[in-house]
Amino acid sequence: MTTYGEQKLQEEKVFKDPVHSYVHVRDQVIWDLISTREFQRLRRIRQLGTTFLVFHGAEHTRFNHSLGVYELMRRIVDDRFSGRDEWDASERLVVLCAALLHDLGHGPFSHAFENVFELNHEEYTRHILLGDTEVNAVLRKVSEDFPQKVSQVIEKKYANPLVVSLISSQIDADRMDYLQRDAYYTGVSYGNFDLERILRVLRPSKEQAVIKYSGVHAVEDYIMSRYQMYLQVYFHPVSRSAEAILNQILQRAKRLYKEGYAFELMPKPFIPFFEKKIEIADYIALDESILLTYFQLWMHEEDDVLRDLCTRFVNRRLFQYSDLNVEVEKERYVRLQQLFQDAGIDPAYYLLSDCSSDDFYRTTAKQEPIMILMPDGQLKELTEVSLIVDAVAGKIETDHKIYYPLEEIEAITNTGLRDEILTLLERA
Amino acid sequence: MTTYGEQKLQEEKVFKDPVHSYVHVRDQVIWDLISTREFQRLRRIRQLGTTFLVFHGAEHTRFNHSLGVYELMRRIVDDRFSGRDEWDASERLVVLCAALLHDLGHGPFSHAFENVFELNHEEYTRHILLGDTEVNAVLRKVSEDFPQKVSQVIEKKYANPLVVSLISSQIDADRMDYLQRDAYYTGVSYGNFDLERILRVLRPSKEQAVIKYSGVHAVEDYIMSRYQMYLQVYFHPVSRSAEAILNQILQRAKRLYKEGYAFELMPKPFIPFFEKKIEIADYIALDESILLTYFQLWMHEEDDVLRDLCTRFVNRRLFQYSDLNVEVEKERYVRLQQLFQDAGIDPAYYLLSDCSSDDFYRTTAKQEPIMILMPDGQLKELTEVSLIVDAVAGKIETDHKIYYPLEEIEAITNTGLRDEILTLLERA
Amino acid sequence: MTTYGEQKLQEEKVFKDPVHSYVHVRDQVIWDLISTREFQRLRRIRQLGTTFLVFHGAEHTRFNHSLGVYELMRRIVDDRFSGRDEWDASERLVVLCAALLHDLGHGPFSHAFENVFELNHEEYTRHILLGDTEVNAVLRKVSEDFPQKVSQVIEKKYANPLVVSLISSQIDADRMDYLQRDAYYTGVSYGNFDLERILRVLRPSKEQAVIKYSGVHAVEDYIMSRYQMYLQVYFHPVSRSAEAILNQILQRAKRLYKEGYAFELMPKPFIPFFEKKIEIADYIALDESILLTYFQLWMHEEDDVLRDLCTRFVNRRLFQYSDLNVEVEKERYVRLQQLFQDAGIDPAYYLLSDCSSDDFYRTTAKQEPIMILMPDGQLKELTEVSLIVDAVAGKIETDHKIYYPLEEIEAITNTGLRDEILTLLERA
Amino acid sequence: MTTYGEQKLQEEKVFKDPVHSYVHVRDQVIWDLISTREFQRLRRIRQLGTTFLVFHGAEHTRFNHSLGVYELMRRIVDDRFSGRDEWDASERLVVLCAALLHDLGHGPFSHAFENVFELNHEEYTRHILLGDTEVNAVLRKVSEDFPQKVSQVIEKKYANPLVVSLISSQIDADRMDYLQRDAYYTGVSYGNFDLERILRVLRPSKEQAVIKYSGVHAVEDYIMSRYQMYLQVYFHPVSRSAEAILNQILQRAKRLYKEGYAFELMPKPFIPFFEKKIEIADYIALDESILLTYFQLWMHEEDDVLRDLCTRFVNRRLFQYSDLNVEVEKERYVRLQQLFQDAGIDPAYYLLSDCSSDDFYRTTAKQEPIMILMPDGQLKELTEVSLIVDAVAGKIETDHKIYYPLEEIEAITNTGLRDEILTLLERA
Repeated sequence: MTTYGEQKLQEEKVFKDPVHSYVHVRDQVIWDLISTREFQRLRRIRQLGTTFLVFHGAEHTRFNHSLGVYELMRRIVDDRFSGRDEWDASERLVVLCAALLHDLGHGPFSHAFENVFELNHEEYTRHILLGDTEVNAVLRKVSEDFPQKVSQVIEKKYANPLVVSLISSQIDADRMDYLQRDAYYTGVSYGNFDLERILRVLRPSKEQAVIKYSGVHAVEDYIMSRYQMYLQVYFHPVSRSAEAILNQILQRAKRLYKEGYAFELMPKPFIPFFEKKIEIADYIALDESILLTYFQLWMHEEDDVLRDLCTRFVNRRLFQYSDLNVEVEKERYVRLQQLFQDAGIDPAYYLLSDCSSDDFYRTTAKQEPIMILMPDGQLKELTEVSLIVDAVAGKIETDHKIYYPLEEIEAITNTGLRDEILTLLERA
Repeated sequence: MTTYGEQKLQEEKVFKDPVHSYVHVRDQVIWDLISTREFQRLRRIRQLGTTFLVFHGAEHTRFNHSLGVYELMRRIVDDRFSGRDEWDASERLVVLCAALLHDLGHGPFSHAFENVFELNHEEYTRHILLGDTEVNAVLRKVSEDFPQKVSQVIEKKYANPLVVSLISSQIDADRMDYLQRDAYYTGVSYGNFDLERILRVLRPSKEQAVIKYSGVHAVEDYIMSRYQMYLQVYFHPVSRSAEAILNQILQRAKRLYKEGYAFELMPKPFIPFFEKKIEIADYIALDESILLTYFQLWMHEEDDVLRDLCTRFVNRRLFQYSDLNVEVEKERYVRLQQLFQDAGIDPAYYLLSDCSSDDFYRTTAKQEPIMILMPDGQLKELTEVSLIVDAVAGKIETDHKIYYPLEEIEAITNTGLRDEILTLLERA
Repeated sequence: MTTYGEQKLQEEKVFKDPVHSYVHVRDQVIWDLISTREFQRLRRIRQLGTTFLVFHGAEHTRFNHSLGVYELMRRIVDDRFSGRDEWDASERLVVLCAALLHDLGHGPFSHAFENVFELNHEEYTRHILLGDTEVNAVLRKVSEDFPQKVSQVIEKKYANPLVVSLISSQIDADRMDYLQRDAYYTGVSYGNFDLERILRVLRPSKEQAVIKYSGVHAVEDYIMSRYQMYLQVYFHPVSRSAEAILNQILQRAKRLYKEGYAFELMPKPFIPFFEKKIEIADYIALDESILLTYFQLWMHEEDDVLRDLCTRFVNRRLFQYSDLNVEVEKERYVRLQQLFQDAGIDPAYYLLSDCSSDDFYRTTAKQEPIMILMPDGQLKELTEVSLIVDAVAGKIETDHKIYYPLEEIEAITNTGLRDEILTLLERA
Repeated sequence: MTTYGEQKLQEEKVFKDPVHSYVHVRDQVIWDLISTREFQRLRRIRQLGTTFLVFHGAEHTRFNHSLGVYELMRRIVDDRFSGRDEWDASERLVVLCAALLHDLGHGPFSHAFENVFELNHEEYTRHILLGDTEVNAVLRKVSEDFPQKVSQVIEKKYANPLVVSLISSQIDADRMDYLQRDAYYTGVSYGNFDLERILRVLRPSKEQAVIKYSGVHAVEDYIMSRYQMYLQVYFHPVSRSAEAILNQILQRAKRLYKEGYAFELMPKPFIPFFEKKIEIADYIALDESILLTYFQLWMHEEDDVLRDLCTRFVNRRLFQYSDLNVEVEKERYVRLQQLFQDAGIDPAYYLLSDCSSDDFYRTTAKQEPIMILMPDGQLKELTEVSLIVDAVAGKIETDHKIYYPLEEIEAITNTGLRDEILTLLERA
């Protein structure tokens, strides 16, 4: 008799997907997982957070991306690995489920949200997989320990390192999907690399998925794509400016709550987060439409800071920015803070700093290297065979910025004060 | 001295756009309009309403599309018409503004929303253009009657018919943008036609924009694309199923409000709509994130119907459908209503019908025909020169469906009743 | 033991192909066929004859296209049909070989060439398959009757009509490849249709390959693409003008040879064709580079007509054209012939006529209809289920043209004569 | 009165181009140049020489590419530079002509041809521009010294260095076109970079075209694309194998001629090249169809080497290859030569070596660096602002190969000899 884990749909179902053409589903388990409310919730979480305020096409969601990672994994496993000695066919379902569900725990505007409320989306992915959820119910129908297994793959604790590598390595299904997907929806061309070629040269091996030597140039191209996407899209300063404001909104709301501020409408969905007593149900209940709704309500709050920041975020009146490394130019920064204070602009909310930083490729304890399968069967680390990756490996591109409301500074009536600020911001 | 209407940005600004590569802005007026809160609000209204529940890529917004229509119009006017005798250069700004702002009055999930609250988005576009809004303030800086002019263009009441035709005809900038954009984001290939070619053969003429004869085949292709998009995407039965549910949610909430039902949280943003006393500010305040937030709240309401319908919409548990024309098969429909009643499933909310209908191309009083500029300077109507358009002109593709919760019907314990329903639904 | 027909390459080989991304070869037979000199010769025969003189990208060859048809067939058979009851797996190799080899008998600039020398490329395909060739030697290694079988499939005489339909029907692998390929290389967008979708809905059936009902719109789109490609590319009047000249070059050379004209260099490779005593080896020896070489030699021949026509073709000094149906406007045509004569321009070579004609879709004795597999298992003919195909079926788009050297006519010194000609050509 | 140089076509003409969508021509001069037989001859010279034997799509010609470079230049000059202070509008025509004509002197299979006959295509470009040609006649109609000016731009001797830089620098119109074009026709994705973006950030400056700082990442991407195209396409070992054979064919034919060998058909078009007495007319008369025609004739010559090599080239029976740097492993190479001799395989024709080598980016005396226009108006050299280009600048990727007929070696009956050869070739 067919077990639930082996059950196939009577007819294959497909989702039209602009990136992979179609997402194909034949397994009953996968179909059932997609229909759970926890998975459907990912439709209300954008893949790229605040990036839509810079690249207006970037409205795509984590639902979108999760299906894409699943589809890539399905192609890797069914079209590429299936039938090879190094691949254990019994791992198929767990890796497909892990691919589909790996982002389940992401909250609304993940980075800012996790930052302010000291959360970790990976932990919440585990909670959703193992807790009292529809997803857990589906997974348990496969076997009692199946939810745990899926969770282990996502947390990189699964026994079979090859399976883990498929979902979290420097060239995994997750990254390959998001680079292409984010490029597609933003409209930038940088995320394009030869995905077909990489799939063709991917091979299972004992410790991890490896790349046949003939595919090294495709991998080089992928690494350069990744780098460009980070610089051009993920670290775009305007998007970081929006995120900095978002951060301050959540911080301010939390502080006001703690101080007993009387919100016009009590922000019920936020209270568990303000108080750090979060049930799974609270977590799942939150999404970006709810945040945007509250931000719009708060545009009418009495508190000046909350009101102003929300108005800025909703109507896209973002902060301008200048280059400034607050570690290196501490004095300049402290002086700016003082001058903002003097001008009546609270630097805690209106002089923000951040730093983005990315390296091209690394081989550290944490990051498994990309291994190349040589014609003679040996494995070599990528930098040994790629002149170009070797040249850039370990190089770090760092960008330090400060953000501030330029139009308010320009409106300062004390011209001496104003000009000193503008000069320090290199705006003079 | 340069007037406000003539003012150019110091440096051209661009928006990265996946469909047109870049959207270029040089006019200060355009830049200022984009920055208004009313225009920014379009970021929170999806272009395709409930379609994202079928085509997961279709999360793009009216902000997105509005910029696209503006960009197409800019290319038509600046690259194609500029310098030609038939084109009056003084119309440039009004047509660009009309292109940018033509969708300003769309509400959240427009169709269902307009339907239930008996609104008309075109009327609201006019209100926003002429009322106390940021958009109006920008337009008035051009000249006192400029908001009125822009409004007239959008309402097809503007004196110069050529200008009107650019924004509302059977081959205008609006349609050309949305066909390509919706195809891009859904991932279907049908919306592709040779936009470059059509732009190249578009010519200004006294009464309307016309197409050079050498471009007839590109127009044929465009008409076929349009037809395919309607059938494949816009009229997709699953999306219509979601829209039918949305309709019922709003109907139910309105009715409950009228009946004095005690909502757990009073739906403040909806009250002006329930009571038909809508201020512009109320209208602008509403967007899809607010609707989705309330739908999630209502998933916990006491009222069974509201709770169930909202849960269906949010978690995508949509109705199944069958072919049934309620005009033609009245008896079958009435019988089904009766049987639903007998089974305790309220047909008012759970047995819904709709009809989609599209013709390929028509030449009626309302719809200006597409005119072809012949080599000898004459104008001919498209069907006279295109064998294929002539063959399909006036043909109408109509699709009648009913929607219902299949799984509830299958769960009816009275098997006779259940089987009769299933048979009538052609599900047996 | 593995027979030759079952032998697989140790490692799959791929050809990078812009249209299908990659062409995959695993069968030894296919690999060996590609390496034969008869198949390699297809590299020297352009897919679109004289079209490169209009669309400069159209330099792609029949080698290119043949690999593409093979790849499509491989995907149909291996990914779609394999495992289905209606499909007989033992037909796999014969259909793949037929797909690969179906164009083997094409001569240089096929249409003109076949026309002048009264040849038929299908007959030559059979000769090459069955004669003393490398291709035949490979096929015979599969089995003695295998060359015959492949030939029967291509000639539509094979016992299994399903197999025949895959390679010659109104929606076969041949057409699907060439529409997309020709669109790609010319750069026109019209040839794009949703190939992936059509492959997904193609099903084997007893009499032919059929299309699932859910794919009807994809088929409509394909039919419109086909129509557009015919009108925009295949019947482009400038390309037909070039072909008319080519025709006359070959006619003239043949006539001169027959008349015993003393060519500066005896056109050895043409003699078997002039004399209609063609061996397979003669046929295979000829390709487009040889034709172009002779045309260049003939640019220096003493014979005025041959010299002029060759100079025109090589340096692309083509004829201009006007609309004229020689059947319908016989008088006008005869008068033009007379006037050309009077002006000393030989109408036999300098006043050429042709007619292109295409219908959208037909269901005649010769052309198998496209059959649609309805949800209930019935088969219906396409026009029964497609409103749009029904509307256009049987309509015929016909284009009659005459071609002439406009600049020579304009140079006629007798102005009365000149003006009458120009008037009759509607050039005045 | 309008001079010839200023004359515009009555209606703009366009060429459909897959890479740039359309090539637009408005200048009479450009139109007339395209119609010359010297320019039309470029239709018979492939852009990528022997590459079509590896990437079957690469049949595109220098005609194709030359139009593309012209179109890019037109867009740079008319859309980007026009109206800027640093741009001298009177340079427009000379730079457009230089763009169009820069490859005019390329011979058939340029590299091998130039190598064997010790020619230089740049020299022949000059001869064609300045000699008794149709191109020269058109250019002289502009002004007596205009042919000379165009020639100077192409030869980098023109007074205005900005003009020169547009056509020959590390990021010029020539390279930008061929990278994208070659990627398109081969089907590899590596050649894609954001051309639109680069055109947008290109600025005229005194000494050269420069790139705005905001475009640095697009330039990085371009440099990586270029590198990938060199490694993946231009230096593909199979294409180099074909070129090595081509080289030997021409060498052999030349040697046989010098030795008084009696060709069955005297290779008239080659004689001027064998004898190094080349007139412009001889040069122009030669193209790839003529070479291919002679190679096919020579497949029946008595000389074993010529016959065999031609058969190999025409029927694509190329040499296999191994890694071997003949400088570094001199002994191994000499030993192989000896062993080939012993086996009766002439190493002069059957043991060939070559080396391909490319650096990513360099700043040498010969190669103008890419200059970046900083926000403050300064110019900085690319490596100063790009971490990634700095990392790879000057790195050189070198590939040494030897080529040989593997199947003949495997057929050596003396197994000791055979095995020693195979071992030395690392084929054992």
